[in-house]
Amino acid sequence: MKTAPVADLNMDRLRRNISRMADRARKAGIALRPHFKTHCSSAIGKEFRLFGVKSITVSSTAMGWYFARSGWNDITVAFVAHPGEMSELADLASSTRLGVLTDSVEGMRALDTALPPGTRLWVDVDCGYGRTGIPWGDTLEIVELAKAARRLGRLEFAGLLTHAGDSYSALSREGVLEVGARTLHRMAEVKSMFDAQGLEGFAISTGDTPTCSVMDDFGCATEMRPGNFVFNDLQQVALGSCDCGSLAFRVLCPVAAVYPARSALVLHCGSVNLSADRIEDDGRAFFGAVARPDKWPEGPHMPGAPIRRLSQEHASVEDPEGLLRGVKPGDLVAVYPVHSCLAAWQFSDYRAEGVKVEKMR
Amino acid sequence: MKTAPVADLNMDRLRRNISRMADRARKAGIALRPHFKTHCSSAIGKEFRLFGVKSITVSSTAMGWYFARSGWNDITVAFVAHPGEMSELADLASSTRLGVLTDSVEGMRALDTALPPGTRLWVDVDCGYGRTGIPWGDTLEIVELAKAARRLGRLEFAGLLTHAGDSYSALSREGVLEVGARTLHRMAEVKSMFDAQGLEGFAISTGDTPTCSVMDDFGCATEMRPGNFVFNDLQQVALGSCDCGSLAFRVLCPVAAVYPARSALVLHCGSVNLSADRIEDDGRAFFGAVARPDKWPEGPHMPGAPIRRLSQEHASVEDPEGLLRGVKPGDLVAVYPVHSCLAAWQFSDYRAEGVKVEKMR
Repeated sequence: MKTAPVADLNMDRLRRNISRMADRARKAGIALRPHFKTHCSSAIGKEFRLFGVKSITVSSTAMGWYFARSGWNDITVAFVAHPGEMSELADLASSTRLGVLTDSVEGMRALDTALPPGTRLWVDVDCGYGRTGIPWGDTLEIVELAKAARRLGRLEFAGLLTHAGDSYSALSREGVLEVGARTLHRMAEVKSMFDAQGLEGFAISTGDTPTCSVMDDFGCATEMRPGNFVFNDLQQVALGSCDCGSLAFRVLCPVAAVYPARSALVLHCGSVNLSADRIEDDGRAFFGAVARPDKWPEGPHMPGAPIRRLSQEHASVEDPEGLLRGVKPGDLVAVYPVHSCLAAWQFSDYRAEGVKVEKMR
Repeated sequence: MKTAPVADLNMDRLRRNISRMADRARKAGIALRPHFKTHCSSAIGKEFRLFGVKSITVSSTAMGWYFARSGWNDITVAFVAHPGEMSELADLASSTRLGVLTDSVEGMRALDTALPPGTRLWVDVDCGYGRTGIPWGDTLEIVELAKAARRLGRLEFAGLLTHAGDSYSALSREGVLEVGARTLHRMAEVKSMFDAQGLEGFAISTGDTPTCSVMDDFGCATEMRPGNFVFNDLQQVALGSCDCGSLAFRVLCPVAAVYPARSALVLHCGSVNLSADRIEDDGRAFFGAVARPDKWPEGPHMPGAPIRRLSQEHASVEDPEGLLRGVKPGDLVAVYPVHSCLAAWQFSDYRAEGVKVEKMR
């Protein structure tokens, strides 16, 4: 019996998740450039090729290298490039058609000097999330940056890129739709200034699984970059962007102890396996749901007993409803994490029906 | 220039931290069996030997193997053993003097059957933390378990072990002292029942860095098992169990972008480097503090600008006081994490003044 937690995949669901998102993009008439930071696996990357995906997004040069080596030749590094990584990016640009991201004239100039001609430059626009990007209201600044890039002429101005990460703070499917609509409305305002100045021939890229999973009309966007949808997780279920029938990733781990008197269990599975990410559930911390491993869950409800406390290697489960009644120490259970990207990152490989699936770490 | 985040150690401070805890144990007249899950490094393990440490604590069989291979021959696996790991534990017991943990008669019987004679058995007592262990009030059950172990006679009954993890929920040094005193008071009550029944010759082991860092009188305890103190972190500073002069671990990472208009910076350093663990700071999430890297901090106050939001590879820093004024994209900064154990776990090695320090991952 394996005692260490195992990252377990449901490949049928995973393929269905990809197929659905590819359909959504096709129906909306926009390109799908999935973010591969969620799975970090060349084997899972191959599954995307079966659905016509040819271009991808990554979040670091190391991840870019990993996928370039496994044959991807159209890669956007969707992280604002900084001076410390110019030589790494230049190396990467020599082995794949590279897209890079900036939100400042200084950043653009550094990229223009360091990278091979023809490298695609995306300008990062902040539509309200407040992480990176030029604020959408500073339209002139955005236009000037694009113009300056075109004047320098070595980099190819690819377009405007935004990440509506605030969709993760929405409280419902309606809230997600609202964030998505607002984001694309703001991108359209920026685009209208470009149009007014006769600037043409550029793309508009939007991201994040919640909005891409629920929107039908992508407005001015020409490309979507969701990542998490390949696995989904309980945060997506909580947001209403999927139901449990779309969960394709879980962690199998042993029960260490059972405490019937207080309806509690402790699993040998901690934040070193799941990450310490959490969501709030009626004001209480919620780190994942625990169920019997024999079948994968369906429906809109949380698929098991909640993990309420997580330490380095222990998960403390509360089971007042007796969902895990009869489970004994040593038994394997399935943990559906709150955040699959971070949980998946903790593992050096996956298993799918017991067969190893390779990944980077 | 290195672009990936680096786990940076201050070896002078690390040695001082070990020296101080060894002194505390010596003055209190109890053994120090440090928990090695914090650093997971055979090289750092060697530093402990210089202070007379001969016995250690780990939290998994894999970690036990790692340290047994680097010459440790007195190891307690301080995690309730479950049936799934008996063969792994038996293997480990063949190469080190092993201590194992249980909190049930069934668990004890399984261990007695599977493990070599002479393996030391600890009984896990829950003094109020509510994770694992027999509740301290169920004294008879604890006594019966110890008696049954002695009757079977293959395992050696080592003693009673508790982990006062509730010290991490204390709000101050006084709160930590209170948890520590309450825990040891409860262990003394259990011990008095053992005494009344004429059971002798066993140890009482207590743990956790906060209580071990601030208590002077360890009452009935004969052994302490703190782990985090070797590095410390901002959670310990917040609890008052150390000040910033004892921080020996930090993460060096590049600044990706600077936003003077909103006094914000974004670092290329996310929850894949720091873990997503957080503490609350005036009702706001706090994931770490960011400072210039040229010197290590001193004093009781948070040593830099707070990280308020953490995504997979981005840290969003708020710097209203201008502590990082003049820092530019590409510059390296130092991040002092909230929880050093989890941040350290993310790395495959450390650096100490640029020199690689090996660890397990």
